[in-house]
Amino acid sequence: MQNFIKFETQSTAEKLIQSALQFKEKPFLQKELGKELRIGLIFLNPSLRTRVSTQIAAKNLGMEAIVFNIDKEGWALEFEEGVIMNENKAEHIKEAASVLGSYFDILAIRAFPTLTDKKQDMADKVIHQFIKYSQKPVVSLESSSRHPLQSLADMMSIKETWKNVSKPKIVLSWAPHVKALPHAVPNSFAEWTLGLGHDLTITQPQGYELEEQFTKGAEIEYDQEKAVADADFVYVKNWSSYHDYGKLPKVEGDWLLKDHQLKKGAKIMHCLPVRRNLELADELLDGNKSLVPLQAENRIYAAQAVLFEIISNMES
Amino acid sequence: MQNFIKFETQSTAEKLIQSALQFKEKPFLQKELGKELRIGLIFLNPSLRTRVSTQIAAKNLGMEAIVFNIDKEGWALEFEEGVIMNENKAEHIKEAASVLGSYFDILAIRAFPTLTDKKQDMADKVIHQFIKYSQKPVVSLESSSRHPLQSLADMMSIKETWKNVSKPKIVLSWAPHVKALPHAVPNSFAEWTLGLGHDLTITQPQGYELEEQFTKGAEIEYDQEKAVADADFVYVKNWSSYHDYGKLPKVEGDWLLKDHQLKKGAKIMHCLPVRRNLELADELLDGNKSLVPLQAENRIYAAQAVLFEIISNMES
Amino acid sequence: MQNFIKFETQSTAEKLIQSALQFKEKPFLQKELGKELRIGLIFLNPSLRTRVSTQIAAKNLGMEAIVFNIDKEGWALEFEEGVIMNENKAEHIKEAASVLGSYFDILAIRAFPTLTDKKQDMADKVIHQFIKYSQKPVVSLESSSRHPLQSLADMMSIKETWKNVSKPKIVLSWAPHVKALPHAVPNSFAEWTLGLGHDLTITQPQGYELEEQFTKGAEIEYDQEKAVADADFVYVKNWSSYHDYGKLPKVEGDWLLKDHQLKKGAKIMHCLPVRRNLELADELLDGNKSLVPLQAENRIYAAQAVLFEIISNMES
Repeated sequence: MQNFIKFETQSTAEKLIQSALQFKEKPFLQKELGKELRIGLIFLNPSLRTRVSTQIAAKNLGMEAIVFNIDKEGWALEFEEGVIMNENKAEHIKEAASVLGSYFDILAIRAFPTLTDKKQDMADKVIHQFIKYSQKPVVSLESSSRHPLQSLADMMSIKETWKNVSKPKIVLSWAPHVKALPHAVPNSFAEWTLGLGHDLTITQPQGYELEEQFTKGAEIEYDQEKAVADADFVYVKNWSSYHDYGKLPKVEGDWLLKDHQLKKGAKIMHCLPVRRNLELADELLDGNKSLVPLQAENRIYAAQAVLFEIISNMES
Repeated sequence: MQNFIKFETQSTAEKLIQSALQFKEKPFLQKELGKELRIGLIFLNPSLRTRVSTQIAAKNLGMEAIVFNIDKEGWALEFEEGVIMNENKAEHIKEAASVLGSYFDILAIRAFPTLTDKKQDMADKVIHQFIKYSQKPVVSLESSSRHPLQSLADMMSIKETWKNVSKPKIVLSWAPHVKALPHAVPNSFAEWTLGLGHDLTITQPQGYELEEQFTKGAEIEYDQEKAVADADFVYVKNWSSYHDYGKLPKVEGDWLLKDHQLKKGAKIMHCLPVRRNLELADELLDGNKSLVPLQAENRIYAAQAVLFEIISNMES
Repeated sequence: MQNFIKFETQSTAEKLIQSALQFKEKPFLQKELGKELRIGLIFLNPSLRTRVSTQIAAKNLGMEAIVFNIDKEGWALEFEEGVIMNENKAEHIKEAASVLGSYFDILAIRAFPTLTDKKQDMADKVIHQFIKYSQKPVVSLESSSRHPLQSLADMMSIKETWKNVSKPKIVLSWAPHVKALPHAVPNSFAEWTLGLGHDLTITQPQGYELEEQFTKGAEIEYDQEKAVADADFVYVKNWSSYHDYGKLPKVEGDWLLKDHQLKKGAKIMHCLPVRRNLELADELLDGNKSLVPLQAENRIYAAQAVLFEIISNMES
């Protein structure tokens, strides 16, 4: 594994989950591995869990982690080729990525989508330019199209929780919100569950269908109540329209999930931050169905497994 | 000691002062103690001394310290129970504190008062919610009601300076300012001086009386000149009205302290930042009566003693 | 060497270049030297390369580096003596520098010029106040008048690239921009090239002459084409007018350098960030004449050599 920006293969994903579970048992198992290695955590957008968990993961492996909020501590970057930079962008990605590549052994990048330029977002332009110009391994801390560290932690959480021989029924359920949110988390969740051979049902209002490359193989069910009735895991998440890109088509009915809609023993999941009682009700977040704290905690070990894998490949 | 958010007992305070003085002699005495322990320094408000001194204190004990300016690098938190989060607050304290609790061994929090909601401020709602939901030891980096790390450094500074057998006369003197400032520093200073058995006189204009739970046992003297005339230590600090909460009632007379008002050998103190020639005159800050640099330097060792004590209790 | 804020002597500069080249070969050669030493990296302005490279340099020497963006994480500082601080500045440099001096073994400061108050800028008031009140070694991370860490990296880059016995022809060439930029980089570049005995030609439009204390000994050539025709190194950089301080006098002609104007084997240099196709064309930045990535990479080792020298002098 050179870069970590999406789901690759089932065997890679399973290896990462095993490795993450092992680091959860013994966080300092490889504490000398990253000595004299540096990771740059580059944020073009705000972050809490992703930043802190990746910083901790790097430290657990003995690496030096340096956080740089380029949007706040630096200046605006230009991503277009060939333009005359006579407006408000002070540095081109070519220079920024090349310099950061010469300063760090691994780069990790967060770059949210525009939600206005679908083509650019789906091409993950920012992260691919970092890969191209830095010439160093790149880890996605959430790109326009995907949030693979989140999904790895989510898969770990399902693995830890589901002890039956039979397959669990996993549902991805759209939830209400007041803002237009990216598709990265639901895209990745679908990509990873399906990639790992899970059965996935997606429930969402009309107009909120995700890009098919991520959802191919999933069952689509527009009736939320029906979709979640016998679910073992319900991943709750808002996203904006993909087809009417970044827009918020009018939604019929009440999509705020209720405890009584779920069977006993069902688990609810969310990537956080969550808007309580808008996306997910207090009764569910504060009740014993919630896997949310587990998912957040697992972010450390998901990141640690990914960094371990990248470093191991560097050495070979 | 589990949390450090206020003065507890005289014996605990004295133990912390002794420990801080010892770390000042030998900062690296316990440099292995915190190995594999992490402290999160969470700021909801700006900071210079508190942030840097606590970061250094943690490092001196071998801990990994991670600073997170949640107001600038993250997003606005919701502290109310049961609300529908459909406005500008992106995450509830329940999630934020719980996640940070799962990432760190100790959390340290700065959360200034609203100065508009007296009840919420006096209940130190923010810091108590961090304690409740993080389930980890919490250190106050200044809460609505108190600034105990400052007071511990102040007590250390008095201890280092006063070598007489007799008790010193300590005065807390209100000073002018242009903004409405919190009560945390004067509250804590009163709580710690009185708690350690010192004699304390508080001088302030009419309308600027502090909450009585902190000042009980202190002498109140509205005539500043009289109060400071024979003082050994004068702690100079502005605060807004407590009874007319957060307001700035009109003040009679000139409350800017003059050197000639103090006796030879008197010491002046201030927690910083100080507005020169508004709160405290150049002649005093630049003269030999000032303990201000000593107080600031002692912030490192006060924090180190507190972290040492918390870690020691974790291990037992 | 006590402070590093400008070019001192040819022998010191040559020693630093040698040391920097050695650290480039073996970054961890002195990795225990700075153990138990702390450097504070204090920014009054944004930074990418300077911040990250200095942080890495410090870590390579085993030092603890703490970054503090005082403009964003703290509050506005007052630099005037004797004023009544009743406006928006919350702390005086006297206190800020004195406290930071008591917290760190070395301070490194970035403070851009006002570009309105020439006298204050040329006196490097901010950095000199940090030196005066901190009483610790101070490293410039770019002051009003100079950017010596950049120049040291630039000199290193020329040294690595020029293998002939004859002297190279070095040209500093003004370039267009949309904003009024400081003189620190061109001042320092002239100071270091001339101080090291290089031949330097400066080409700029009328009205953009630099302060003579930096350029004395350089040839001034207002015809850019003529100046660069036989150049071995062309340092491209914008700056605002010095004599009509901070202004942008009207410029005749096209100052954007073209590849065909340069001889084969010529090298172009820039300190970054660069505005592509405004200051420097894609064809030059992306071609094999560019030393720009080398300069940026060398920032780490330039900083490392400077910190090594300062620490070595502390110990003696």
